[in-house]
Amino acid sequence: MNKNFLLKCDKAKSLYDIAKELPIIDYHNHLSLTDIAENKRYYNIYDLWIKPDPYKHRAMRMCGVEEQYITGNKSEKEKFVKWCESFPKLIGNPLYHWSLMELSMIFGIEDIPNESNAVMIYDSCNDFMQRNEISVRTLLKKFNVEYFCPCSSLVDDISIFNNDEHMTPSLRGDDIVAITNDFIEKLCTVLGKEIKNLHDFKNAVIKRLVDFKKCGCAFTDHALDNGFEYYEDDSKNDIRFEKLLSGEIKEIDKKKLYSHILTFLGTTYSSLGFTMQLHIGAQRYTSERLRNEVGPAGGFAAIGNSVNISSLTNYLNELEKSEHGIPKIILFTLNPADNAIISVLSGSYSKDNVSGLITQGPAWWWCDHKSGILDVLENTAAFGLLSNFVGMTTDSRSFLSFVRHEYFRRILCNWLAEKVDNDDYIYADEEMKKLICRLCYGNAKSIMGGFKNEL
Amino acid sequence: MNKNFLLKCDKAKSLYDIAKELPIIDYHNHLSLTDIAENKRYYNIYDLWIKPDPYKHRAMRMCGVEEQYITGNKSEKEKFVKWCESFPKLIGNPLYHWSLMELSMIFGIEDIPNESNAVMIYDSCNDFMQRNEISVRTLLKKFNVEYFCPCSSLVDDISIFNNDEHMTPSLRGDDIVAITNDFIEKLCTVLGKEIKNLHDFKNAVIKRLVDFKKCGCAFTDHALDNGFEYYEDDSKNDIRFEKLLSGEIKEIDKKKLYSHILTFLGTTYSSLGFTMQLHIGAQRYTSERLRNEVGPAGGFAAIGNSVNISSLTNYLNELEKSEHGIPKIILFTLNPADNAIISVLSGSYSKDNVSGLITQGPAWWWCDHKSGILDVLENTAAFGLLSNFVGMTTDSRSFLSFVRHEYFRRILCNWLAEKVDNDDYIYADEEMKKLICRLCYGNAKSIMGGFKNEL
Amino acid sequence: MNKNFLLKCDKAKSLYDIAKELPIIDYHNHLSLTDIAENKRYYNIYDLWIKPDPYKHRAMRMCGVEEQYITGNKSEKEKFVKWCESFPKLIGNPLYHWSLMELSMIFGIEDIPNESNAVMIYDSCNDFMQRNEISVRTLLKKFNVEYFCPCSSLVDDISIFNNDEHMTPSLRGDDIVAITNDFIEKLCTVLGKEIKNLHDFKNAVIKRLVDFKKCGCAFTDHALDNGFEYYEDDSKNDIRFEKLLSGEIKEIDKKKLYSHILTFLGTTYSSLGFTMQLHIGAQRYTSERLRNEVGPAGGFAAIGNSVNISSLTNYLNELEKSEHGIPKIILFTLNPADNAIISVLSGSYSKDNVSGLITQGPAWWWCDHKSGILDVLENTAAFGLLSNFVGMTTDSRSFLSFVRHEYFRRILCNWLAEKVDNDDYIYADEEMKKLICRLCYGNAKSIMGGFKNEL
Repeated sequence: MNKNFLLKCDKAKSLYDIAKELPIIDYHNHLSLTDIAENKRYYNIYDLWIKPDPYKHRAMRMCGVEEQYITGNKSEKEKFVKWCESFPKLIGNPLYHWSLMELSMIFGIEDIPNESNAVMIYDSCNDFMQRNEISVRTLLKKFNVEYFCPCSSLVDDISIFNNDEHMTPSLRGDDIVAITNDFIEKLCTVLGKEIKNLHDFKNAVIKRLVDFKKCGCAFTDHALDNGFEYYEDDSKNDIRFEKLLSGEIKEIDKKKLYSHILTFLGTTYSSLGFTMQLHIGAQRYTSERLRNEVGPAGGFAAIGNSVNISSLTNYLNELEKSEHGIPKIILFTLNPADNAIISVLSGSYSKDNVSGLITQGPAWWWCDHKSGILDVLENTAAFGLLSNFVGMTTDSRSFLSFVRHEYFRRILCNWLAEKVDNDDYIYADEEMKKLICRLCYGNAKSIMGGFKNEL
Repeated sequence: MNKNFLLKCDKAKSLYDIAKELPIIDYHNHLSLTDIAENKRYYNIYDLWIKPDPYKHRAMRMCGVEEQYITGNKSEKEKFVKWCESFPKLIGNPLYHWSLMELSMIFGIEDIPNESNAVMIYDSCNDFMQRNEISVRTLLKKFNVEYFCPCSSLVDDISIFNNDEHMTPSLRGDDIVAITNDFIEKLCTVLGKEIKNLHDFKNAVIKRLVDFKKCGCAFTDHALDNGFEYYEDDSKNDIRFEKLLSGEIKEIDKKKLYSHILTFLGTTYSSLGFTMQLHIGAQRYTSERLRNEVGPAGGFAAIGNSVNISSLTNYLNELEKSEHGIPKIILFTLNPADNAIISVLSGSYSKDNVSGLITQGPAWWWCDHKSGILDVLENTAAFGLLSNFVGMTTDSRSFLSFVRHEYFRRILCNWLAEKVDNDDYIYADEEMKKLICRLCYGNAKSIMGGFKNEL
Repeated sequence: MNKNFLLKCDKAKSLYDIAKELPIIDYHNHLSLTDIAENKRYYNIYDLWIKPDPYKHRAMRMCGVEEQYITGNKSEKEKFVKWCESFPKLIGNPLYHWSLMELSMIFGIEDIPNESNAVMIYDSCNDFMQRNEISVRTLLKKFNVEYFCPCSSLVDDISIFNNDEHMTPSLRGDDIVAITNDFIEKLCTVLGKEIKNLHDFKNAVIKRLVDFKKCGCAFTDHALDNGFEYYEDDSKNDIRFEKLLSGEIKEIDKKKLYSHILTFLGTTYSSLGFTMQLHIGAQRYTSERLRNEVGPAGGFAAIGNSVNISSLTNYLNELEKSEHGIPKIILFTLNPADNAIISVLSGSYSKDNVSGLITQGPAWWWCDHKSGILDVLENTAAFGLLSNFVGMTTDSRSFLSFVRHEYFRRILCNWLAEKVDNDDYIYADEEMKKLICRLCYGNAKSIMGGFKNEL
């Protein structure tokens, strides 16, 4: 890539000179713990570049590529060629930029993939991977990743995190609230304790959260999908839990228990100093066929309707009244029409001496493209405080997606430069430098900070 | 108009040089079949320019013009003068641009209408129309219209389409789903068959759809107005149809029958190779007074709340499970807050070897202005695939509205040029040329393609 | 501030030369009638600049400032210093611009507040205020305020408005519709009459509205908060009113009575020539703690979900059918996702000889920042008519907030200049001058016009 990619004036270039030196903190992603544990080495460009990336699968489907060439039985090479054939059609989609950055950064390839050069790129990358080690560790080093936080469930084996000072778990808490007997059983097994009632359950959860904290966990994560409703507590959740155990619980009671546990978790996160990520607004149920064929994370999710704001404010209010109050919360929104209503919540709750108690997170999932990134930056600045913005995280399944931090930083620096040019930001050089450091690194770092080796 | 109107850099101009040569395919509009059949010739600028255009009526109402000067009993000249008096107030509204383009293109008039020059323009246009033939056919030729598709109901006489190789019907399907006994009766008359039950009804519909296909029909159209809800099938629709026939059907059962028929139609369209347009989100009921005075299409409709996304995904999922699967679908949204949730659906369903199975349509109705057009292009590029975009259609009642294709093309080319300047699009000249051809002509053409004379 | 602040080309500067000479009409604000009555003089910069401004309190909370330094018991100086410490973090938020403009305009201070210069600014401002009179009257003069309209309740003492030809009340009508026995009692006291039924109540309201009209009132205001639903009349409101009086009214009946009175008020406003402001979409209930600690207007409100458009169109339709029809209505929306659906309503209802019967109001509350202002201008132009736009009002509690008119004007002029550069607006100089005068002054003036001294 051109070294001035996306930097359209001298000020933008000089701001990016600051940003590019900062390490990466990727505080929430879906990288494979197995691949990390075995420091997987890659020998085939398809395995590294396409197979683990549902965004690319989705794009190929939009191009009408047969599923057998996407997730089916065709060979790696055939699949790779189909991807390259589709590539010129992706103009304007973030995949176009990301993919070019990925090829350029790791393989030094500057070609734009297409039907003609597909085999050449395939062979050239594979050849490169024979001659050079491309593995989990070399990739993390290449991208200057200081910290990264793969998702883990409360019942996962997290011993791996004891061995890596650069890696802490991001607790995926969905199975704790959308509780099943299967989950309870696993939790019992992990802890070697019986769970007979809600009280036992909460104690087990707390015990396990402390284990996570010991592993350096600083971030947790909950999905509030399309249709989320919060039910205020009615003191009947002990009974609901019993009904759950006996398999007699009704749907509505599951939802009420969900709300109850979500409040319990929020206040417990607060007591432990965890930051809670709420990923709001996914419509995960679309094509049953694709769900069956390629699994629930196959890249076919959609965007839900606007979040029920009363449910969200009721939840935050209940948290504020709870024993340990509101934890630091990052709100991610998938529906860009929710940007303002989410961003403005940052001024609706407060805690003495906590800067940015509630902030909007970076552009998420389908919104993670240039205009989506700019949209979130504008919204955070206008409705909240830009300087509290926690910065980029990939939320990705691919070890190449760290390029998105560079993408974010280039867009940020160009945007800031334009802002200065337009008098929107009247800022001394020194202050602008501080701001960039906070947004690309410092704010996330200060959340990680208290928990592991201070770097 | 200045030949570089809306083209603000050299690249934009050179891209537009490609676009401007392409013929127009207007795949959905409301042009009068009667006017087309008789090749109506116009002798009065009011009849051509203002009378058939509810957008202009609406604008005059916003200026406080008395209704008698809009749709009432005042003379053509008086109405024309009121329009010109209002004109300077329209700055910023798309009517300002469209109207100037219309005057310039057909009459060579470059004045900006106002109180002072109204009578001069009126006389000069009418004089022009005496001296030169301005008729349906000369207009279509002037605008280089290769194909156009006026709306027709399933029960309309479509023999006119046999005589015109440039014209095919766009099936307006609303009366098939919002079914009434009156409609059933008309359908019986058209086909000379009795309809005693839902089975008969479906067969009649299929028979008639085949007639449409023989006339070259490639596009169908359904309005999913504000409040649309989809009901999954419960196998009780035979009974509902009987109750409909006997006049005893309840409102809720009408809605369930509506959903059932919508699914039947979707899968049937798929079997016939029809593309289904869904026009989502109109709030057609606003002022009862205007509805009574000037008719349902009088230019006073509003925009509804966000579409119920679960209803839409359920519908698409049911279609995917149906006999013939999902037809090619174009989703139009009237509420711009829905752009992202609509656009992202293009990646949620797929069919082997169908590129762009589901795509967002061009900016529609009140959204068809420069910022609305740019909004849809940005959304389609970021959340879907720009190269699958089916391009502009007017959806208009006026034969002058074809200028909107030129308007769209100028905006598109300027936007693409800016994208290239900002590194958003890294694209070789040849690829950009292909893209422009697809978006202005080729993608719509490939849908029309299989059905009539391949041009 | 730089005299070309926000004006980025020569055309923008020359347009602003027109705008800056126009007086201010601030047709809706929350300025203290007590402060106005006593012509309060300020001696402490904290009292003038920070204390009456909940926006600033909110920003400090987002920075983690302890509440004792915001609304608590700390000294004025300590609070001031905390504000200045927070200031550099506000970059991008409109407070950053407003605050710098306020300091510059009144005190000639051009420093950017921070930890280091806080005490210096504090002393320097206080010194200035000792040496120069800074009072309600000097501020109004400084800002060239021709008219301003502080909120008053129907039961407030409005005699103050008889003494000031530049000030008229903006009727805050919420307590008339969300009616309580307490309110009825106050109304009886004000008028010296008994209210035994709905008929009496309406007569009392009308009598009092006439009093407001005599004081020059031209604007009224109602909040349609998140969740607003309109109920069409069912002729049972006399009984509901009786139940209200006897304290037996149910919640749902309160809501129906609310709708009934809202319709009654709308048509009465129409008969009196009042313009009705509808402030749509606030979510006022967020943190109970803050509500208890700092009061309901403490700067912690949020933005509600999208307005129920059917409720709104039903209301407008009922008004159109009512005795006196629809009054001139200004629709303010807090949720920017509603901009299009609100703006487009301007074309859905009309009245002969009334230009701009329904228009979208200026960017409101949390949306009153540069991108929010631009958003409303774009929407109004594209979906409605820019030339009908009623212009800026502060809606503020601070006498310094009049700087926001300058802020609005600079943004407007720069935007118009860009529009001309991009061929979006093809406009003669003279027409552009007229447009600026209408948007910054004339349209609001023409509403005020009929009521008091014509200036």
